[in-house]
This record gives sequence, structure tokens and C-alpha cells, in this order.
Amino acid sequence: MDFELTEEQRAFADTARDFAASEFAPHAAQWDREAIFPREAIAKAGELGFCGLYAPERIGGLGLPRLDAALVFEEMAAVDPSTTAFITIHNMATWMLGTWGTDAVCTHWGEDLTAGRKLASYCLTEPGAGSDAGSLKTRAERDGDHYVIHGGKAFISGAGSTDVLVLMARTGGGGPSGISAFAVPADAPGIRYGKKEHKMGWNSQPTRTIDFDGVRIPADHLLGQEGEGFRIAMKGLDGGRINIATCSVGAAQGALDAARRYLHERQQFGKPLASFQALQFKLADMATELVAARQMVRLAASKLDAGHADASTYCAMAKRFATDAGFTVCNEALQLHGGYGYLGDFPLERLLRDARVHQILEGTNEIMRLIVARKLLDGDAELR
Amino acid sequence: MDFELTEEQRAFADTARDFAASEFAPHAAQWDREAIFPREAIAKAGELGFCGLYAPERIGGLGLPRLDAALVFEEMAAVDPSTTAFITIHNMATWMLGTWGTDAVCTHWGEDLTAGRKLASYCLTEPGAGSDAGSLKTRAERDGDHYVIHGGKAFISGAGSTDVLVLMARTGGGGPSGISAFAVPADAPGIRYGKKEHKMGWNSQPTRTIDFDGVRIPADHLLGQEGEGFRIAMKGLDGGRINIATCSVGAAQGALDAARRYLHERQQFGKPLASFQALQFKLADMATELVAARQMVRLAASKLDAGHADASTYCAMAKRFATDAGFTVCNEALQLHGGYGYLGDFPLERLLRDARVHQILEGTNEIMRLIVARKLLDGDAELR
Amino acid sequence: MDFELTEEQRAFADTARDFAASEFAPHAAQWDREAIFPREAIAKAGELGFCGLYAPERIGGLGLPRLDAALVFEEMAAVDPSTTAFITIHNMATWMLGTWGTDAVCTHWGEDLTAGRKLASYCLTEPGAGSDAGSLKTRAERDGDHYVIHGGKAFISGAGSTDVLVLMARTGGGGPSGISAFAVPADAPGIRYGKKEHKMGWNSQPTRTIDFDGVRIPADHLLGQEGEGFRIAMKGLDGGRINIATCSVGAAQGALDAARRYLHERQQFGKPLASFQALQFKLADMATELVAARQMVRLAASKLDAGHADASTYCAMAKRFATDAGFTVCNEALQLHGGYGYLGDFPLERLLRDARVHQILEGTNEIMRLIVARKLLDGDAELR
Amino acid sequence: MDFELTEEQRAFADTARDFAASEFAPHAAQWDREAIFPREAIAKAGELGFCGLYAPERIGGLGLPRLDAALVFEEMAAVDPSTTAFITIHNMATWMLGTWGTDAVCTHWGEDLTAGRKLASYCLTEPGAGSDAGSLKTRAERDGDHYVIHGGKAFISGAGSTDVLVLMARTGGGGPSGISAFAVPADAPGIRYGKKEHKMGWNSQPTRTIDFDGVRIPADHLLGQEGEGFRIAMKGLDGGRINIATCSVGAAQGALDAARRYLHERQQFGKPLASFQALQFKLADMATELVAARQMVRLAASKLDAGHADASTYCAMAKRFATDAGFTVCNEALQLHGGYGYLGDFPLERLLRDARVHQILEGTNEIMRLIVARKLLDGDAELR
Repeated sequence: MDFELTEEQRAFADTARDFAASEFAPHAAQWDREAIFPREAIAKAGELGFCGLYAPERIGGLGLPRLDAALVFEEMAAVDPSTTAFITIHNMATWMLGTWGTDAVCTHWGEDLTAGRKLASYCLTEPGAGSDAGSLKTRAERDGDHYVIHGGKAFISGAGSTDVLVLMARTGGGGPSGISAFAVPADAPGIRYGKKEHKMGWNSQPTRTIDFDGVRIPADHLLGQEGEGFRIAMKGLDGGRINIATCSVGAAQGALDAARRYLHERQQFGKPLASFQALQFKLADMATELVAARQMVRLAASKLDAGHADASTYCAMAKRFATDAGFTVCNEALQLHGGYGYLGDFPLERLLRDARVHQILEGTNEIMRLIVARKLLDGDAELR
Repeated sequence: MDFELTEEQRAFADTARDFAASEFAPHAAQWDREAIFPREAIAKAGELGFCGLYAPERIGGLGLPRLDAALVFEEMAAVDPSTTAFITIHNMATWMLGTWGTDAVCTHWGEDLTAGRKLASYCLTEPGAGSDAGSLKTRAERDGDHYVIHGGKAFISGAGSTDVLVLMARTGGGGPSGISAFAVPADAPGIRYGKKEHKMGWNSQPTRTIDFDGVRIPADHLLGQEGEGFRIAMKGLDGGRINIATCSVGAAQGALDAARRYLHERQQFGKPLASFQALQFKLADMATELVAARQMVRLAASKLDAGHADASTYCAMAKRFATDAGFTVCNEALQLHGGYGYLGDFPLERLLRDARVHQILEGTNEIMRLIVARKLLDGDAELR
Repeated sequence: MDFELTEEQRAFADTARDFAASEFAPHAAQWDREAIFPREAIAKAGELGFCGLYAPERIGGLGLPRLDAALVFEEMAAVDPSTTAFITIHNMATWMLGTWGTDAVCTHWGEDLTAGRKLASYCLTEPGAGSDAGSLKTRAERDGDHYVIHGGKAFISGAGSTDVLVLMARTGGGGPSGISAFAVPADAPGIRYGKKEHKMGWNSQPTRTIDFDGVRIPADHLLGQEGEGFRIAMKGLDGGRINIATCSVGAAQGALDAARRYLHERQQFGKPLASFQALQFKLADMATELVAARQMVRLAASKLDAGHADASTYCAMAKRFATDAGFTVCNEALQLHGGYGYLGDFPLERLLRDARVHQILEGTNEIMRLIVARKLLDGDAELR
Repeated sequence: MDFELTEEQRAFADTARDFAASEFAPHAAQWDREAIFPREAIAKAGELGFCGLYAPERIGGLGLPRLDAALVFEEMAAVDPSTTAFITIHNMATWMLGTWGTDAVCTHWGEDLTAGRKLASYCLTEPGAGSDAGSLKTRAERDGDHYVIHGGKAFISGAGSTDVLVLMARTGGGGPSGISAFAVPADAPGIRYGKKEHKMGWNSQPTRTIDFDGVRIPADHLLGQEGEGFRIAMKGLDGGRINIATCSVGAAQGALDAARRYLHERQQFGKPLASFQALQFKLADMATELVAARQMVRLAASKLDAGHADASTYCAMAKRFATDAGFTVCNEALQLHGGYGYLGDFPLERLLRDARVHQILEGTNEIMRLIVARKLLDGDAELR
């Protein structure tokens, strides 16, 4: 057992930290306030390999373990969880395309995606199928050497501003086994994007519904085999959950660092806040919770990298724990800033708003509990 | 002991509920999104007496108990905590002006304030004196039959859009006993308002800093006696804390009601959410916490109305408990809505953002704990 | 609305406090350690009317409101929750007997019960029917002018040391409507008591299983009508839940008072613990939680006294909230005592052990959540 | 980074699990109830090396990393936290003696201690110096080639039943730098043991005060140098905190396993408890919290093994987190058992009582927060 990062891992993290400081930090507040999707900054991240961190080398990805990818995401999320979360989703969709895509698909999109020149959206959720993803209704009908897609998706990150949609649609009967995955050109005829949603946070990435009205795509845009789509989607989500959990850890670290500084700077009753014991205790609990959250994420990433039989369960645990902890730490850090924490001049309220959605998406934390409970009650998992 | 509302109290509450449904509900989301200060809607509230609920009859107030005022505020806050909170602050400042103001001051502003035709801001906090209000530095120097004011205030609700400032400034030496209260015309020469702050919520009321650069006001604009200002400010805050706590109770009730409806409407896995036991339990805990919060507010209001020796302590308890509970209930209700809770199409995320600041202002919840602890440890308060 | 106790109510509470100080305080630790059932002390409580506080005057009870009874119970529970809790159960069973018993039954047992000379147990729970009380299996078959009882009960407070058993048994078909209530002489032939259970706390009252093997009782020992038993049991429990909630409030008050004293007495790092801010904050939160719990109990008692349509829901809320708060406050008070809190020389660990079971019995707090959720989701209860 | 146990580590854990199942499980309830100190079972643990797991080989210890020791302790604590906790304290004291003891001391006691034939107590706390250990008053005066000890200790685990006392006493001036460590024969003339304390739990190990009234020990019984005692004590405690944290993890695992079984076995409302969603969610959260706690312990152990500069901080974090989580998980598991959880027939209430003291000793969790906060605020620790 070994809990230390390697030199190489530290170097990855340092690079990401420097990148975030120079490319995200000066703009993150504005991107949030004005709902700007920073395609150029994302492309710069792509130049460093951050858009295909664990995508296969076949499509120009770095093929890194999830653990290493998490180190990079965490550093970026400490500055801008919203933009970073989009990048993680792009990484997930790109990994899916590179892992299950045909040569044609990989050749067409692969290198542009890993380089960040093109971007991908992950299209699973529907208005009536959120937590119950296996009941999705969007259909893809085989028609010669094409599929024709009808239906609609909701809550799609990046929708309207990305280039390829990794889409789950039903090719067979009801339930998960009737679902297949596809790579769909984002500008295919018959695709209509909804209005940009007003959200509490995650404002630097657009969220829209997508309608598919007879969208024709070549049959070789199928990812994997027919009927494998739900399994592929869930495999993607295992990593996606680690990614989102990591974004919460990053946000919490950003918030904690801000609070540490503020407690020294701010004076009340003739003393720095840092000298008040109740605030010290609060800070200690925040840091402890954060370290625990980070360990949970790393444990899950390690299980996923190792192909552990219970990897999905660990991912669910990590997602539940780290996103709850992330929200709590951001919230406490805001409180430690008093009224200033509520203002947009400080990053706290933005970190909090961004981190809030992590408890909901990629499977709500209620779904995470179900996953963990089933494993505990149906099987004999040790989960130690 | 009697926990039931009178017929008259129910009528007050019903009036407020109807008013909020017709005047706030259709616009609250827009006011939030576009940062609109709804002066007209506030003036309509004034027509119903809601701008001077507990202000003395001398200035046209209704002179109601705080308990009755809380019933009104709660109903409005269930729809729009931000606008309602401003109205409560206006009520507080108006009560202070009407209680300690000279006849000249009362005649000049009183009826316009209680009618909501003019609005008041409460100016205590300074950039360097938040929780430590007693150390404020803004000075008011006597100069013949005027005072001349130099200094600056921060986090002033309504600043730039109100007509009179109830200002705490130092006329004597250091500490609380050197502070006096004043009514200052909001457009007096020498007043400069800062930019409108970007905030997490409370967007329907502008928040600004105010600079006072040699602002001259007549000596009869002093409220009470010189040196009484801190005591007056704290008296105001006792009620202010009940008001803010009530706004949290209202926000939580609004969120709970939304969640009750949503659990019936939303289907997942072939069943309404209302049939899932874990969500039922969550809802039960939210309702229980909310009822407890409401009781704490009513208990404190009752103590304040009765002039109970420990009224300030009960107000601090109620503020701490109800604003924490309010945030938690709003947050849980958002979670019960899944992704939709995060969107601006539903009121949840707005209620949450608005309720967040209640844990910070009118004395942070940390200051509330200090007040309660001092009473418990220094005296022999029973607090039963 | 009025939150103040009357003079008479204060007098009741003072009497109870004095009684507990003189009759419980010197012995409570020993009763706990040696598992002594203090019949004599209970009889003395009976002399003050505390064994029939809300029992009807028809059997010598005081016929007080539940609210007044709660004041008495709270004071006693602050010293000895275990003994007090037994007294509350006795009060509940006695009230049931006095309310639904025939003249014969009332004449035979009534005055001895309200005077505390004889004691009653409440027999609802069975080994296989805990939370699911409506499925109980103990049968009472009519046989001429007798009933003959077969079956078994579990977790019966006082069993083996009481004189009359208020028993729920099935006279009809399955479900709640087949259940009837009876008064059964505790020494009737065919009754066998199990061994005294080893428990975490509540050691001053014996808990045993009871087997009924052909126990014959006169038909006039039926309480109410055949088939009314479940309703009667639940009516009893509404009050029982307030009583148990009150015992938690009392325990918490006892623990808080101990902590307040200890923080002044104990010195560390050259200062009294009372001067450490983090401990001050903890104490403030404990007191606040306790005041909220007390309000919830009083609100529920008031609803029950008034026959409010949602009284059962308020009782469930109060039971859930106050027993959770009571445990938390006792637990925090123990922590504030450091190692000494863990020793039997101080009352903290006993209060904690006693309070723990309140979250479980008279309906677990999970069942309380179900009751509240059903009301929220099935109806249109306002619960304000 | 590697989160998997080696084969050898699994073998250690399996051995410990088997040992605990055969030697602890059949007796743990009785040892608790009758306050029996199981010297023979401890000696059997010693035969397996469990009494000197990380003690140096110089005295017959296994010299294992703390991480490996934690694996063993965890398995035993899952069955009997009290007995296991004593064994961990013995390990800590034995490690101190073996690390800083003179040859004479090591030869005299070493092998008997690592073999579990003799037992050691750790004597730091005094009645007036709990959290503030650096202010201890027990004195050791040099007198030729002896030291003469006067003073008193409190809360000493094993006192009266152990063979050697690892004692911190003052040889110099005030504060930590005046403290030295000694190995003292437990039966030396002048030592008086207090009565066996009544405690909430930890009943299988006696706790007593110890008075030292002119106790003479040879000068070579000094551990390390004069003035090094506080540093030695704190070094011991770093490991001691991991040990206690591990005992909480073990207790929680024992409680969780019991709850998993019970949810399948127990039926209510015609279904196993395992089918109720709210209970499933509870179980999932318990398991998640437990996994996080275990990771924190392993992280801290790893830092301590590696001599990391912030090892003490990680130990404090792990102790705070894991002992809080352990208590919570035991408490929830008890609740899931309903009334049966409160009975001595099940292990839950014993696990809860035992785990409770872990939040208090080896430095209260309040002291842990201070340690973490200081590191966060005084330095630039990354703590990632």
C-alpha cells in the first residue's frame, strides 16, 4: 500500500495548477457571470493533453490511469469547477468514442477531440428518464446502412457548442438491454437545440435540451454493438463519477485555501479571525473532510484502473462522499468569509454554486446510495 | 400556553399570502435574474400596511406585535425571500425612526415610510466592522445645530434606491458607548454610493457601499440621545433577527411545498417519487425541522413582545436555528427536484441562494452562538 | 399565542424538581448500576399525583392536560430518565384503563394505580411485531364470560414487577381492526415472565418478555369494544410519544446543566473550559437545540389537548425531533466532560444510555418519519 | 499509489480475524458485563505476536509498519474493541520501552511484554492535566542512582493488573521540556491503585488512578534522556491515535456486518428490512463513512511509517475522523436493530459504548482539531 504520488504525478499536477492559474483564474468569474463558454481556454487545455487524458492512444489520447487524470482535474477545478467539469465530460465522451468507436469514427473525430479542437457532449438523460436512465425513449432505427434517430435529450452539457454527441438511444426492446450508443455529428440535419438553460451555476458551460427529428447517421457511427449502449454508458459514468467527485475535491480545496488566507487577513475584535478557536475548529474539520474525500476518489480511481470487481461501487461511494463533502466545505468556507463570501468579488459563492450540481448529476447521490446498498445487501462484497 | 393563531392573525397571514401570490410570484424569478428592485410592488405592500407593521402608530404604523409581523413576512418570503427581506429591513429601520426620532424627523418621513412611498436603509456595518459592530469608525461631529458625517458603510441593503438612511456613527469615544444613531437623507450632499454588488442571491434588492464625505444633517436628526446608538441598533436587530429568521422559515415553506408537489408529479422507475421511502423520510425531516424553526421564531417574537429579560438571547437562538434550518430545507428540496432543482425554471435554486445570506447578516450565526453562550455561561439564565 | 407558563404550571414543575432532587438524585446512579426498580420512590411520586397526572378523575387521576404532565415529567427526567420514563408509561396505561375500562376494572385498580400503590405495564410489542404493531399475533378468544389469552409479548417495561397489564390481543381477523385491548392481572395463572433483559440503559426498570398460555380473564376486563384495541393503543401512544419526548428533553436539560457547571469548574491550559470559544459555541448549539425540542413537545401536547385533527402528526414530529435532540445534547455534554463524562461518577453517561432508547421505543424514529410523510403526501395538512 | 493489501497483509488480517472469532467472540459480552480483564486471551494474542506488533525486534517485537499493525487491530476490534484497545495501548507502551529503554530495561521486560506474558500501562494523564498534558505535576527527583517519584495519574488503562508503567514525570522546570519518561515496576513500593472506575464501556480493561508516594526506581529506568519525555509521549501517541482510530474502524465494521445480516433476517410489514429503501440508504451511508474512515487511518499510518513531516497532523485527522465515524456507524447500526439493538444479547450496544471513549482519549477530538488547525494556520502544510 502506498499513498504517495510519484514525481511524474506531481509534475502533472503542477502543470495543471500552473495552467489553471494562468488560463482560468483571471477569467473564471467573468465566464460565470456572463455565461461564456471558453472554447479557447479549453483548446489550450487540449494542447497540454488535458482533453484526452485517459482516452486511448489510438486516437491521440494519453491513455493515463484515472488516478492521474484526477490529479489534473482536481487542480483545474480548484480554480474553475464549471469549466473543468465540462472538460471531464468531454474526456469521458472522448474515451467512449475512442474505446468503442469504429476506425471510421475514430479517424474522423479522434485526434481533434483529444487535442481539444473539437468537443464532445454526453447524451444520456431525457426529460422523463433521469435517475431511471434505463427507461430512455429516444429511438435509433436501422435503415439500410444508416440509423435514423427520433427523440429528445435534456441537461446536455455543452449542447449547441460541441461537435459530436455521444448518444444513447434505443435500438431494441425496453430496458437497458435495448439501448445502443452512437457518435452523432452535432450539426446533423434534424437536430434542434433548446434555449440555454438558466442554472444556479455551471454557467461557463451551456446546458440545453436536444431534439432529434429523423436524424440520419451512418451505421458505422454505432459505438460497440447494438444493445451494448447502456453498459457503455455506465462504464463511462464510472469514470465520470470519479471526475465529478474530483471536481468537488478541487472546488473544496480552492475554497479551503481561500479561507486559510482570509482567516489571517481579516481582523475582528482586534484580532485576526485565525485566532478564534471556533473558526479554527471549523477549518480543521473542513480540511479533514477534504482529505477524506480525496482519499475516497483516489481509492475509487485505483479500483477502476485495476478493473476491480467492485469498482462501480467504489465509484458510487466516492461520488456520494466527495460531492457532499465538497459542497459542505465550500459552504463553510463561504461562511468563514462572512458577508464577503456572498459577493461575487470572492470565488466562494461561485465555487458553492458550481459544486452544488455535482450532488445531482452523473447519477444523483440518492442513486449512488442505491448502488452501494444493493452491493451490500445482495452480495457479499467486503468493500474494505 | 397557547399555540394557536387567532382569527385575526390568520386573516393577516391570508392577506399576505394572497398579496405575494399576485404581486410577487409572477415576477420573482425575473427580479432575481435581472436584479430589479421592485419599488412598485413594495409600495403596494405598503398600501396593505406591510411597510410599517410594527412601527408606532405615531408615524402611521400598525403597531403590531412582532409575532403578527412575522406571520406576514413569512407568507411573502415563501414566494420571494429577497424582496421580503428588504421589506423587513425597511420595517426595522422605520420602527427605529418612529421610536427614537424627533417630531421633526417623524413628521418629515414617518408616514411616507410606513406607507411604503419612501424607503429606509439600515447603516451599521462597515468594511472593517462586521461582526465587531461596536468598533465602527464612521464619525458624526457636532457643528452648531448640525452634525457632519465622515466615513463609510458597507453591505447596505437598498443603498442607492432608498430615501432615508438610519445611520450609526461615532459621536464620542471608542466602543459601543460612543455611538449615536441618525436619520440621514439619502440624497444629502457628500453621500456617494458604490457600485451595485454582485451577489449570490438577494438580487431584487441592491447592495452597495456608501461613503460619507462631510455630510451635514440637522442636529434634530439624531435618534434618541448621543451615545444611545449602539443600544438602539441592537434593539433594532433583535427584531431584525426575528424578521430574517422568518424569511428563512418562509423560504423553507415555499421549498417544502414545491417538493411536496414535485414528489407527486415526477415519475421514475414507473412510480411517483412520492412512493420512494427514502424521499418520504427526507420530506418528513424537512417538515419537522421547519416546524421547529417556526416555533423558535414565534417563541422569540413572543419574548420580544413581552419585554422578557432574555429576549435578545431568544432572538439569537431563533436566528441561528431558523436560518440554518431554512437553508437546509431549501437545499434538500432542491435535491429532491434532481436536475430540475438546479434550473431557474423552478424556484428552488433561487430560494436557496436567497436563504444563504440569512446565516450571515444581522449578525452572523457565529455571533448568535456567542450571544447565547455568554448568557448561558455568565448568568443563570434558565432559557426554558 | 402565548408561550409563558402559568403560575400554577410553574408550581407543578417546581414541585417535581424538588421531588426529583430529594427522591431520585441521591439514588439514580445506584438504581442504574444495580438494576433496582425503585417501587418506593415511585409510590412517593404517586403521593404527589404523578402516577395519574392525566388519568381521569373517575379513577382518582388529576385529569391534567398533557402539557402540564409534560412539565412534571421533564423535571424528573432531568435527574433520572429511566425511572421517569417508567412512570410515564404507567401514566399512559393508567389513562387507558381509566378512559376505556369498565366500572369493574376502574373500581378494582383505578385508585391504586393513580396513587402509585399498584403499577401498570403496557403490552403491545411482540417479538415479531415491533414497528408493525398491527400484525400482532397474541390471541384472546371469547369463552363464555371470559377471554382466554395465548401468545407472547416482548420489551415490556416493568414486566414482572407490575400489577396490571394493559394488553393488546387479537379477537378478530388480521390487521389492526381485529385487535382489542384488555386489562390483565399481572399474576393471572398462565402468565410466565422471561428473564430480566440486559440493556444499555433504562436499568431502573425491568424489561421482560411475557408468555400468555391460556390466561383466563373476565370478559369485563375488555377496554372499550372488541376491535377498538389498536385505536386505543395508538391513542395511548400519542401521549406516550409526548411523554418519551419529554423524558429526552429532561435528560438533555440535566446534561446541559451539568455541562454549564463543569465548564466553569474545569481548568485546562490555565483557564476554565468556559473561556474556550469552540466549547462556548457547542454549548450554545446544545441549548438552542434543547429549546427547540421543548417547543416541539409543548406544541404537540397542546395539539393533543385540543383534539387537533393533526395531533398524531405533531406527536410524531415531536417524538422524532426531541429524542434525537436529547441524545445529541447528552452526547455533546458527555464530550465536554472529557474522560470524566465516561465515568459513572458523573451522570452524563447514564443520561446518554437512558436517552438512547427513546429514539427506538413507542414507535422508532423511522416510524415517526413514516407517519409524518404520509400526512404530508397523502393529505393537504398544513402542519404550520 | 497503491491501495491494495499484499498477500502477507491479508494473511495477517485473516489470522487476526480467526483469532478474534475463536478467542474473543464467545466471551466479549461476558467480559464487558462482568468487567473481566482477560489476561489469558491477551497472552494468547501475544503468542501470535500481537502484543509487540510494531515493537523493535531488539525486544522480540515484530517491527511491523503501523499500517500492518492496524490491520490486525481492526479485525480484533470488530469483535471486542475494549480488549483490543487495551492491547493497542500495551503495544504502544511496549514500543516506547523498546525504542527508548536502556539495555537493562529492555532485557528485564522486553520479551515478556512482546510475548504478552507481562503487560504495560501508559501513564500520562493526571486529574488536573488531561488535554493539557504538558502541565503535568508528577515529579521524579534524581537521588543518586535512583529517581524518587511523587504524584498521581488518572484514567490509566490496565492499572492494577499490569506489570510495568511507562510513566511521564517532571524532572525539570514547567512545561513540556521538563518532562521525562520512565519504566516503573507496577508493584514498586509506594504505588497505590485507586478503585476500579465504573465506566460506560471499556469494561474488559480496568481503569484506575495511581498514586506515587516516594516510589524509588533505578536511574537506568529513564527512557531516552531527561527532558525528552513529552516528545516520547507524543511520538507514542501518534501511533496510539492510529490504533484507537483503528479500533473505531473495527467496531464500525463489526456493527455494519451485524446490521447487514439483521436487515435480511428481520421481517416487518411482511418484508425483510433489507427491502425498505430508507434503511438501504442508511446502510449505504454507513458503509461509505466506514470506508472513508479506514482510508484516513491507512493514510495516517503510511505517513507515520514514512516519517512524513506532517505525520502527526495526519494522525490527528485520522483519529478525529475515524472515531467520530465509528461512533456514528455503531449508533446507526444499533438503530437499525430497533429494540434488539438496545439489548445485551446483541453486540451493538456494547460496540457503541466501547467506541464512545475513542472520541475522548489519546487526546480528545477537540485537541485533534487544535492540532490540525495549528498546522493549517501556522504553516504552509499542503495536507493533500
